[in-house]
Amino acid sequence: MPSVPAIEIDRRVRAAQGALAGADPPVDLLLIVQKADLFYLSGTVQQCHLALPAEGSPRLLVRKVRETAQADSPIRDIVPLRSFRELPGHVRALCGEPPWRIGMELDVLPVGLWETYRGVFGDDAEIVDCSPALLAVRSRKSEWELDQFRDAARIHPLLFAAPLRRLLAENISPYDLQARLEAEARALGHCGLVRLRGLDVETGIGIAVSGPDGAAPSHSMFPIGGAGPHAWVSHGGTRVPLRRDVPIILDFLMSTTGYHVDCSRMAVRGAFPDRAASILDRIGHLLRGMESRLRAGARPAEIYRSAVEEAAAAGLGEGFMGPAGYRVSFVGHGVGLEVNELPVIGPRADQPLQAGNVIALEPKYTDPEYGVIGIENTYAVTEDGAEQLTTATEAVVAG
Amino acid sequence: MPSVPAIEIDRRVRAAQGALAGADPPVDLLLIVQKADLFYLSGTVQQCHLALPAEGSPRLLVRKVRETAQADSPIRDIVPLRSFRELPGHVRALCGEPPWRIGMELDVLPVGLWETYRGVFGDDAEIVDCSPALLAVRSRKSEWELDQFRDAARIHPLLFAAPLRRLLAENISPYDLQARLEAEARALGHCGLVRLRGLDVETGIGIAVSGPDGAAPSHSMFPIGGAGPHAWVSHGGTRVPLRRDVPIILDFLMSTTGYHVDCSRMAVRGAFPDRAASILDRIGHLLRGMESRLRAGARPAEIYRSAVEEAAAAGLGEGFMGPAGYRVSFVGHGVGLEVNELPVIGPRADQPLQAGNVIALEPKYTDPEYGVIGIENTYAVTEDGAEQLTTATEAVVAG
Repeated sequence: MPSVPAIEIDRRVRAAQGALAGADPPVDLLLIVQKADLFYLSGTVQQCHLALPAEGSPRLLVRKVRETAQADSPIRDIVPLRSFRELPGHVRALCGEPPWRIGMELDVLPVGLWETYRGVFGDDAEIVDCSPALLAVRSRKSEWELDQFRDAARIHPLLFAAPLRRLLAENISPYDLQARLEAEARALGHCGLVRLRGLDVETGIGIAVSGPDGAAPSHSMFPIGGAGPHAWVSHGGTRVPLRRDVPIILDFLMSTTGYHVDCSRMAVRGAFPDRAASILDRIGHLLRGMESRLRAGARPAEIYRSAVEEAAAAGLGEGFMGPAGYRVSFVGHGVGLEVNELPVIGPRADQPLQAGNVIALEPKYTDPEYGVIGIENTYAVTEDGAEQLTTATEAVVAG
Repeated sequence: MPSVPAIEIDRRVRAAQGALAGADPPVDLLLIVQKADLFYLSGTVQQCHLALPAEGSPRLLVRKVRETAQADSPIRDIVPLRSFRELPGHVRALCGEPPWRIGMELDVLPVGLWETYRGVFGDDAEIVDCSPALLAVRSRKSEWELDQFRDAARIHPLLFAAPLRRLLAENISPYDLQARLEAEARALGHCGLVRLRGLDVETGIGIAVSGPDGAAPSHSMFPIGGAGPHAWVSHGGTRVPLRRDVPIILDFLMSTTGYHVDCSRMAVRGAFPDRAASILDRIGHLLRGMESRLRAGARPAEIYRSAVEEAAAAGLGEGFMGPAGYRVSFVGHGVGLEVNELPVIGPRADQPLQAGNVIALEPKYTDPEYGVIGIENTYAVTEDGAEQLTTATEAVVAG
């Protein structure tokens, strides 16, 4: 049985062709190689190119493994590709005679590989960036896709309950807590693979940070940094055992079929300090405000601006979305087959939200003593509001 | 304390400058952004550029986090970088007036980012690929680096013992076995992060595959594929519980400070079948033959050819290094800060081995009934042979 139904792949193919048709000058064909985009448009991550002409049916050109690609993908036109030199022949069969304008994923395609494609196509083709258009298509999820998120979201409440309480009772480090919660997440259904878009954008299934080490700013795009176990990692929990009565934040992704749901909750060994509880209470109010603004037509930049203003008014200005001097420029982000998708809820995002956007909102405050205090939920945007996908209790988990 | 000693960073900087000096036409400056290369030459993975002129001292240009970069790196010249537009000024300060020839990592740098650099430098600079030269430098490890491998290699014998036997006793799936062994590996000292070079080259800390599902060919560059838990992953163990008396192969990476050690061993619930034991015995003989040829001056292509010939003579021709039709084109590979390093022990690798190369040799046989049967060890090449780093018993672990 294909991993994604034929009717769903057909819908996506048509949506991508619709985006192509809007390009100026027009693009003749998409040539897709990156795993998340490939899975989106074909249902397989096998080593292949998806050749999608502006009109007509897609062709999947498989280097390896053809049998697996045929089992995974509902695409009917699946043929072997023995050499890159065969690519122009396939483009000719799908689009007619050159010159061609071919869309590829230039935000992720390495220069060396791009030069190989340029050599293969020579003067017959101009290669242009198709990623912005494709990412816009991917940002609007179908009802079938929403069901994938819902399936993954079932797991967070199970993970942030007995397994977490049991681990908190042990005298372990935040690093070991995150490692063992990852194993629990997989046992509960996580497929084990997290994909992010871009060079060196890395995270595991989840992180757990606590105390001053957890307040270390991220060198990457994340509102939680953490010192990590070594300079080579520089992210997430350390090997220093958890201290009693010090807040712990858990930021865990869930994905059963590729679609990531993002959720953060607070925990503690012992008692959650009053000052931390007061911060968490204000973070909860901030999140309720952000939720109330989440609907089709809302402008991300306005949601961002409101959140930053309300954080400042609540006494959480310095430290909101990162320690002083290291605030990240968003309060939420799209999720899907990749963790860093569109839309971004940031200061320059003026494109109105659309029904079907799936967005993680994550108001987070970095405190020098406690580390990060925050809540994160994932929502599906609807015409008149938002469906909250992550339903684990927001109360602090104590163990 | 820096993550890498100053004397070691100085050695690497001089080695990279030596490689630059050999380029024709000469390269004026390396501008390094990819995390593994950056850590190699600076000791930090913070968001920065390392600007290394052909002569003189390197300068680390830090976007974020400057305090962490200063703590991690022994480089003395560390300055903030607020905008890419400041880059030409730094190159001028280090190299004098343009035009410049700037080496960047074009095998991994995305086209979009490369276009940004081209825009910033305009006609003042030609950007050329420095990766082949840098990867050649990285392939020859120092005594300090060998100690990092030795530190990591201590862990495999601990992992493939009590924790593995305990997990085998439970009625779990290969997917859960790999997930829980990953958590055990981290508790024993694994730093939790695996880096591989290239777009979409992905693996976790380890995989466990068994039976017919384990015989599925890899869509990537690996001699072990496995069906994985879902088409989105298509790699490693499935969720189908382990069957008694069916071989399991465990392929686990270890890294405590960035340096990966690669090791595979066999296990079973119940009894290891006689036919599988016969295959494993022949694999052991193959590995002893490969080891005997591993020394400075040996040609990888000859080691490869001998291994393929000996596999065929031992009745393991079809299925050696992948199922029929899907043989990968190597029997070993360099390891270091990345898992897929130079040198490759493959049919077209004619450059003689050098002392300090660290190489994983992994004769593996894919059997339709059993999955993959193989052994993998990691070795440091010396002038007169090889030091075996991975010392876990090669006997089948039964539980």
